Amino acid sequence: MKESKWAIGIDIGGTKINIAAVNDQGQVMKCMHLVTQVKAGVDSIINDIATVCRKLCTEYAQPPLGVGIGMAGQVDSHTGFVHLAPNLYWVDVPLGEKLEKLLGLPVSITNDVRASTIAEWKYGAGKGCDNFVCCFIGTGVGGGIVSNGLLLEGFSNSAGEIGHIAVEMDGLPCTCGRTGCLETYVGGLAMSKRVQEWIAAHPEISHGLGDPQHITAKILVEGFRKNDPVSVAIIGKARKALVAGMKGVVNVLNPERLILGGGIVYGLPELIDWLREDIKHAALAIATKKLEIVPAALGSDSGLIGASALILEKPPAKRYEPNASKLRKT
Amino acid sequence: MKESKWAIGIDIGGTKINIAAVNDQGQVMKCMHLVTQVKAGVDSIINDIATVCRKLCTEYAQPPLGVGIGMAGQVDSHTGFVHLAPNLYWVDVPLGEKLEKLLGLPVSITNDVRASTIAEWKYGAGKGCDNFVCCFIGTGVGGGIVSNGLLLEGFSNSAGEIGHIAVEMDGLPCTCGRTGCLETYVGGLAMSKRVQEWIAAHPEISHGLGDPQHITAKILVEGFRKNDPVSVAIIGKARKALVAGMKGVVNVLNPERLILGGGIVYGLPELIDWLREDIKHAALAIATKKLEIVPAALGSDSGLIGASALILEKPPAKRYEPNASKLRKT
Repeated sequence: MKESKWAIGIDIGGTKINIAAVNDQGQVMKCMHLVTQVKAGVDSIINDIATVCRKLCTEYAQPPLGVGIGMAGQVDSHTGFVHLAPNLYWVDVPLGEKLEKLLGLPVSITNDVRASTIAEWKYGAGKGCDNFVCCFIGTGVGGGIVSNGLLLEGFSNSAGEIGHIAVEMDGLPCTCGRTGCLETYVGGLAMSKRVQEWIAAHPEISHGLGDPQHITAKILVEGFRKNDPVSVAIIGKARKALVAGMKGVVNVLNPERLILGGGIVYGLPELIDWLREDIKHAALAIATKKLEIVPAALGSDSGLIGASALILEKPPAKRYEPNASKLRKT
Repeated sequence: MKESKWAIGIDIGGTKINIAAVNDQGQVMKCMHLVTQVKAGVDSIINDIATVCRKLCTEYAQPPLGVGIGMAGQVDSHTGFVHLAPNLYWVDVPLGEKLEKLLGLPVSITNDVRASTIAEWKYGAGKGCDNFVCCFIGTGVGGGIVSNGLLLEGFSNSAGEIGHIAVEMDGLPCTCGRTGCLETYVGGLAMSKRVQEWIAAHPEISHGLGDPQHITAKILVEGFRKNDPVSVAIIGKARKALVAGMKGVVNVLNPERLILGGGIVYGLPELIDWLREDIKHAALAIATKKLEIVPAALGSDSGLIGASALILEKPPAKRYEPNASKLRKT
């Protein structure tokens, strides 16, 4: 195949790794998958990734401009270090340096949510927009912020954690170890847990959700569609929490667009309509007057598309040095 | 007096107007005051301001570089328009253009909270910092955000409204017309109102706060210091609300510093210690590990100092044209 300008985009998750050839229009030309062999260890996983990358390269006349990676965890895009990727049990892995050495190609890294935000910015629902916030609601809730034309990173590279806005002062416990977080009302994992707790506490309430131990967010949404009272209550609370959380986002950041994506939103697209309806009564008029609330455009490919954009949109000027570990922020 | 580089900084509020000569170190050399003659109307107020500015100019050998204005309200810094200043009953006033015409000097405008944020950034508690948030708690609660070295404006110029983060899903009514806002638990006006309501609802509770109709935030703080149970309860709730609100700010923006200022903070500096103590249990570890929580450094002069910095730090390249009104965003 002829593609003069393309890059490899990689989305590294705790269960699978997607590796794709992406052209400079942000289109996935070919995508390959790996199961994340967490137990095999860091170097084995990186070797597997390199093997797939080499395979992809043989398909095109031109070599790729480089490799962009989005991964779940705390990542330092300046040094190529993965500080912490809990699902992979990685701590302080110089991923950029290792993969550059194996492939002889420039490698850029960011976290998965920021990669998805970049993808929506360059090719999706945030195209042409200088002020927007992405809110991805899946197992957990993550976010990415573009303000005044800048992707916000924050001081220690953790800006965008909108799943951990407090929506209640004395709220329910969250997986982050704190309480009252938005994620604990609207995240898929938390909602499933909540419905299990509810059923355990009220065994007298009849419901058609099956074995409480196997209730997933998907079953919860199905229950909601069938008017199951427990599902209706949990999702009603999720609606309120989402409005409360986004009220803060809208008032503090004053975005032009609020982009909602992630598995829960794809399964329950009503969330977008509800938010459109409710946010006008919750946030300041000046901040909502011209606000657009729209679905994410790129679905589950957004992570690897955004990762490739790290290379395609802004070829890295400086590469990771062999001793990049010294560059690590202390 | 000899000052080769200086500017006029103006802080326009609903009750008074402070006008100062500020040197290029951000120091107030001389400050003059006007009572805001709201009823006299726009042109009369602007004429009064111009008269004081001319008076100030006669004190220095060199003319000022220009005039910077911070004012309470919705201001468009690009056009010099004041869209809405509720306390002055101003709607769509081309303040920049009018004052430039009267003085023959360049005029720059921003809102009062953003002016104070600029002052703290250039000369105060945010000096040398690229990621910080100012939270000013007075009658209401306002904020300013500097992220990745950029003062955030937002899409319709309203970024920074941290007083209107939701801290409760079903919260108390706020002056903004919505419910559950941070401001309604920690703002001076709201706290006074709350204590009045509390006393009205519980006449049996003994308190030493005097006539409920005359309870101010100051009296509330005095009551708190004397262990008055009503004051202790209201201020305890304010502490919780502040932590919940700042949790969102810290997790979403990941600032290096959180700067607290405003009358309530100056009267109750414990708020800073409480927040330092509580935020570690409320926000994500990665966002709080290196977070500094500090008091604002410039006090009530910050508005006019920041306004002067609009001129001193970045002399405006483009001035308002006589028909600047056409530039107004629609």
